[in-house]
Amino acid sequence: MFEFTDRSKDYLERVQAFMDRHVYPGEAAYEEQTAGNWDGFPPILQELKAKAKAEGLWNMFIHDERFGPGLSNFEFAPIMEILGRSTMAPEVFNCAAPDVGNMEVLAQFGDEAQQKRWLTPLLAGETRSVFCMTEPNVASSDATNIETSIDKDGDEYVVNGRKWWSSGIGHPNCEIAIVMGKNDPNAERHRQQSMILVPVNSPGLEVVRMLPVFGYEHAPHGHGEVVFKDVRVPAENMLLGEGRGFEIAQGRLGPGRIHHCMRLIGKAERALEAMMRRAKARVAFGKSLADRDTVRADIANSRCEIDQARLLVLNAAWKMDKEGNKAARKEIAMIKVVVPLMAQTVIDRAIQIHGGGGVSDDFGLAHMFSEARYLRIGDGPDEVHREAIAKIELRSLN
Amino acid sequence: MFEFTDRSKDYLERVQAFMDRHVYPGEAAYEEQTAGNWDGFPPILQELKAKAKAEGLWNMFIHDERFGPGLSNFEFAPIMEILGRSTMAPEVFNCAAPDVGNMEVLAQFGDEAQQKRWLTPLLAGETRSVFCMTEPNVASSDATNIETSIDKDGDEYVVNGRKWWSSGIGHPNCEIAIVMGKNDPNAERHRQQSMILVPVNSPGLEVVRMLPVFGYEHAPHGHGEVVFKDVRVPAENMLLGEGRGFEIAQGRLGPGRIHHCMRLIGKAERALEAMMRRAKARVAFGKSLADRDTVRADIANSRCEIDQARLLVLNAAWKMDKEGNKAARKEIAMIKVVVPLMAQTVIDRAIQIHGGGGVSDDFGLAHMFSEARYLRIGDGPDEVHREAIAKIELRSLN
Amino acid sequence: MFEFTDRSKDYLERVQAFMDRHVYPGEAAYEEQTAGNWDGFPPILQELKAKAKAEGLWNMFIHDERFGPGLSNFEFAPIMEILGRSTMAPEVFNCAAPDVGNMEVLAQFGDEAQQKRWLTPLLAGETRSVFCMTEPNVASSDATNIETSIDKDGDEYVVNGRKWWSSGIGHPNCEIAIVMGKNDPNAERHRQQSMILVPVNSPGLEVVRMLPVFGYEHAPHGHGEVVFKDVRVPAENMLLGEGRGFEIAQGRLGPGRIHHCMRLIGKAERALEAMMRRAKARVAFGKSLADRDTVRADIANSRCEIDQARLLVLNAAWKMDKEGNKAARKEIAMIKVVVPLMAQTVIDRAIQIHGGGGVSDDFGLAHMFSEARYLRIGDGPDEVHREAIAKIELRSLN
Amino acid sequence: MFEFTDRSKDYLERVQAFMDRHVYPGEAAYEEQTAGNWDGFPPILQELKAKAKAEGLWNMFIHDERFGPGLSNFEFAPIMEILGRSTMAPEVFNCAAPDVGNMEVLAQFGDEAQQKRWLTPLLAGETRSVFCMTEPNVASSDATNIETSIDKDGDEYVVNGRKWWSSGIGHPNCEIAIVMGKNDPNAERHRQQSMILVPVNSPGLEVVRMLPVFGYEHAPHGHGEVVFKDVRVPAENMLLGEGRGFEIAQGRLGPGRIHHCMRLIGKAERALEAMMRRAKARVAFGKSLADRDTVRADIANSRCEIDQARLLVLNAAWKMDKEGNKAARKEIAMIKVVVPLMAQTVIDRAIQIHGGGGVSDDFGLAHMFSEARYLRIGDGPDEVHREAIAKIELRSLN
Repeated sequence: MFEFTDRSKDYLERVQAFMDRHVYPGEAAYEEQTAGNWDGFPPILQELKAKAKAEGLWNMFIHDERFGPGLSNFEFAPIMEILGRSTMAPEVFNCAAPDVGNMEVLAQFGDEAQQKRWLTPLLAGETRSVFCMTEPNVASSDATNIETSIDKDGDEYVVNGRKWWSSGIGHPNCEIAIVMGKNDPNAERHRQQSMILVPVNSPGLEVVRMLPVFGYEHAPHGHGEVVFKDVRVPAENMLLGEGRGFEIAQGRLGPGRIHHCMRLIGKAERALEAMMRRAKARVAFGKSLADRDTVRADIANSRCEIDQARLLVLNAAWKMDKEGNKAARKEIAMIKVVVPLMAQTVIDRAIQIHGGGGVSDDFGLAHMFSEARYLRIGDGPDEVHREAIAKIELRSLN
Repeated sequence: MFEFTDRSKDYLERVQAFMDRHVYPGEAAYEEQTAGNWDGFPPILQELKAKAKAEGLWNMFIHDERFGPGLSNFEFAPIMEILGRSTMAPEVFNCAAPDVGNMEVLAQFGDEAQQKRWLTPLLAGETRSVFCMTEPNVASSDATNIETSIDKDGDEYVVNGRKWWSSGIGHPNCEIAIVMGKNDPNAERHRQQSMILVPVNSPGLEVVRMLPVFGYEHAPHGHGEVVFKDVRVPAENMLLGEGRGFEIAQGRLGPGRIHHCMRLIGKAERALEAMMRRAKARVAFGKSLADRDTVRADIANSRCEIDQARLLVLNAAWKMDKEGNKAARKEIAMIKVVVPLMAQTVIDRAIQIHGGGGVSDDFGLAHMFSEARYLRIGDGPDEVHREAIAKIELRSLN
Repeated sequence: MFEFTDRSKDYLERVQAFMDRHVYPGEAAYEEQTAGNWDGFPPILQELKAKAKAEGLWNMFIHDERFGPGLSNFEFAPIMEILGRSTMAPEVFNCAAPDVGNMEVLAQFGDEAQQKRWLTPLLAGETRSVFCMTEPNVASSDATNIETSIDKDGDEYVVNGRKWWSSGIGHPNCEIAIVMGKNDPNAERHRQQSMILVPVNSPGLEVVRMLPVFGYEHAPHGHGEVVFKDVRVPAENMLLGEGRGFEIAQGRLGPGRIHHCMRLIGKAERALEAMMRRAKARVAFGKSLADRDTVRADIANSRCEIDQARLLVLNAAWKMDKEGNKAARKEIAMIKVVVPLMAQTVIDRAIQIHGGGGVSDDFGLAHMFSEARYLRIGDGPDEVHREAIAKIELRSLN
Repeated sequence: MFEFTDRSKDYLERVQAFMDRHVYPGEAAYEEQTAGNWDGFPPILQELKAKAKAEGLWNMFIHDERFGPGLSNFEFAPIMEILGRSTMAPEVFNCAAPDVGNMEVLAQFGDEAQQKRWLTPLLAGETRSVFCMTEPNVASSDATNIETSIDKDGDEYVVNGRKWWSSGIGHPNCEIAIVMGKNDPNAERHRQQSMILVPVNSPGLEVVRMLPVFGYEHAPHGHGEVVFKDVRVPAENMLLGEGRGFEIAQGRLGPGRIHHCMRLIGKAERALEAMMRRAKARVAFGKSLADRDTVRADIANSRCEIDQARLLVLNAAWKMDKEGNKAARKEIAMIKVVVPLMAQTVIDRAIQIHGGGGVSDDFGLAHMFSEARYLRIGDGPDEVHREAIAKIELRSLN
């Protein structure tokens, strides 16, 4: 049953070995080189990227064999969990959000010219990308609310609108944006939207500010608020065709949620480890914290919650592989509800056991917390996913 | 990955068909025939037992191929879930607690004579049995607290003590008790205990009262408080040998917990179904309950929790099959912590949506609740299992 | 601030002394005399009622000085908490539900003749009464759903309908029912309902069954399902006038909820005491349960939750006294949401610490649990009260 | 009962009017002037401080009438709640932590010379102060763990040690530190510690870094890690006498916790308001968020939790006034357990309803969250306070 394929296990082992040899020992350097720093090219990262690429531990996320090893969701999931354990790791292996989702979109929905121009350098780890979907002025979890417009004008499209939580746009190497907007507000509800490729250096595209998450700016990638004012791109930048935006969004979300969730599971595991280490090391009132049964109950509950969440994600991945993203949409909604909240809870416990150290940056826990908390909102708030699950459940009741 | 074997799927299908054809339609009759009734032989049950036996849907729980189809834990688990959906079902298929555990003990640790005398009629569904472990005067989750004595006297053993929560002893067909006691209080901590076979009609064995769970007596099986006063049994009734009681207990608990947990998952599923049916049928303040998003959130959360719990149990079953009960003891402890609490929570939500009907006997929910709540205590309270998990986790930290 | 009046403190002291001297020592006898017994006149209760009456500890609940000492809600609340500690106590002091609510209705809304005929014997503790509101076929939390009809026919009214959770109707001394029904389904939403007095022995009134709560029938009072088939009562049995039923219901609910909640707080306190006593008495794995910090955390959290809930109820009582039931409807809704759930939670913890004893009847905890759980539904489910709170809050936002 | 004194109500009204007229309208300016800015003298703050002082809304926290209006804890509590609603407000009215606690210490335990030198300018709002208690290397919630030494050397004391979470030390106006250390590690457990006054500019005192809380540095006050290396102060800087440190700490904590808790209640109220405003303003899937009953349940639950927490704090304040800090130590521990967790929960719900805006700095919610979360650790972690409550409860059980 819970057996991974040999190919998956082989990658897993190699990734774990790489993490042990290179990534964990490099974390302190990475922290130091990126602290409040937007230059985007910390030397340790550059070095490890090259190493990982050389060892073939590269683009493992992509399902299409033309562009990478072609692992299935179920094969890649346990690897993504390992990458999630370290802030730097996803980029080391060229498996970082939002590029993974954007590369998937380009691989799956881009035409040859689009792939050549934008996908190739992304796959090489030479550029980065941004996904512009959410808008500040409307509840964007409802895609029909979106106000950004994409209007045809001759052989160009003109983009106007305001986006935020455009993640990755802070990076100096970020070259291309995939932008969701409406090209026909009068079309059928889910045919109004399109996705279009907009080079980040286009005139009229302005990053008006970077958004913090619980005080963290997540440099050097960051989350931007972006204004598009009469931004013009050639007509061939349209992805898949007018009115196909919602369809692309749906296709993008499935694997993206698997990645997000497995990444958070890796973080939750690391928080649990930290909690145990701290509990063993700390004495209060004549007793090791690890000998207190409230702490032990926290450890046990965390183990139960993490393991259940992981199995749920693996199950979703497996169903996506087996029956397709659409058939698995309940399973995908479920992991999006379960995992970020689980991670928030486990990390919160770890923070508590670390005392003042927990809320500071000394153990990385507060930062992890901000990521988990953010993901209860990003990619659709919990409420929207619960609604999706309930709808499918109620419908399935004969 | 989450693929069951063909054999498992075949049994599953046949059991489900049997449930649909015979068990669900017979539930009302069963309720009526057993309400507050200790006679033990409701006609509907007798009839369905015969049918199930004739169709070979019998003793599916037992792993030993000499005594049944020999399904593994992982193969049997999904079947047990289905049986759990109906109060009557486990006995219909001769898979009811505590007999399943007792039959496993006799199959695994009994000698040939013991098996012939006690196991054969149990396997035939002709007798029932009881397991006497917990004692009212001590915290029995700590086996070293046990006070019942089993003393050698010539070629007999003399049993003295008081047990409670001796489940099944209320049944008129209950013939044999497996009793845990100490034969050597000075031996090493886990070698003090023995298990011995005591016929229920032995002189000196007295059922002093039946214990309710919440207000339910669980007739016609029930939970008894039993006094053993100089109860004498032949020496050959000792199981496995003196001082082996703890070892037998350990062996009994693994599969028993899988059964308990899958049964509760079946109940939780049924509660969720009831919740949805009720929500669809009921209107308040001009709106179907199924259109309220608090209700929908309850449905979604219940689905997430049930599915996670099921995966955790399947994982434990699979690990037991693959690596043995001992290697899987963390996984077994985890399901015991997770599943009863999950079931209690889901059933509590279903009760709330049923209003007054939920706490009464009209939908079976309050009764289900009592079973789930009981199992957070029975077979060791949650606290003991959390402690076991924490211990293993902390030890595994290098 | 949190100072009770001298009058309140005086009653409180005398009630506490009475409880210590008579009620607690009589509990075992009461349990024995009422177990599964519907005769309704356990000798111990008869004896203590006479004693309490003689000592002037009688009808302390009623605000109207014509009928009792005339304590305010705030003065009576701490007394009701003490009564809540013992199943028998409310009736001993003639302060038991549903009579308290019914007596309030008669005192407040009954005319002289109605008071003379029905209120006087209730105040004397010679009869009992029932309140027939909830119906099995509709979501009765929405009063406009009610289907029972009360039709004028000459100088009589004819009642037709089906009620359930008619509490107290099992008692042999129950003489009078207050019945809610519709006399004009076409009137304005909250003017359709009337309340009418129906003698329990009226032809056509049939108790079709008694309803259990988690297996408990709450003998000798019980909750009945009652059919009214062409039940005729004289026109003068109408309370306050046609179309005033909703208004009476609103008036009845405020103090009733204070009583229910303070009673549950008494129970929660008693559960906490039981939890601590058990924790001190029980040893597992070489350690008193009272030395485990999970248990200690349970104790601390229970203390925090009980004290907060009590303050909230006192605050509601004080506001009702000061500004009237209507002005305090948010406060009343809040205690109805908070207290039963708090009591359920605290009692559930107490059950867990008692192990098997907790779910049985040995410590009264499972029974207490059933009452707390029931009150998350009775008098309107939590959901309805949350909605009421939210409505007021949102409206108050300028 | 829940009646405040006229004096308290008078201050409350004047403070509320001041908040409406000056503080809320000045918040945007304050945010702008302090963002990542350690200069410490934002003009808007300077202006409002002068205004508040002129209006006599100054030092309302201090109980000693020699130094302020002399409000009791119960009188000041509702005022502190109002101050808590705005980040800037506590300092505007010279009621900001940690100065309030330090001023209390100086007023209560300082001698005349110490008061003249250090208390007077603090009361005038001309200087600020820091409290150095917690240490990074030990679990400081157990005061006996403290490693900082305070050794007599002639007519000086020499301080050596490392502190962190020394709040306020980042402020350019911070002049004086109250430092906890051991002067006699061999004395009786609670007589080993002393508190001593150390000017912040003393040679050997070095702020090695400022600590973020989540990503917030809380400029311009901040939390410092401070090294004391052979820091020498005159003997007359000892507070109260050698070995009295624990006693002073105890005296400081009571009112400090009332302040912290009421401040957080103010924040929770503001988060609830924000939640409701947002819910009314936002539409998704054709429906205002304020019309979703999950959102309404969040609002109702938040109201219930806030009101209960406030009553608990008022009760503690009242008991402190009436019976002294020592008699009220259970009540003080209870509010410390209840309020920060309540605030964290309510703010977390508000964040969720604000979507991406909630985790950013646009609504101040993420910042509020960081403060609430920090206070589950600061001034002793929840676990320590739960233990204190349980100890008192168990002891009180006869």
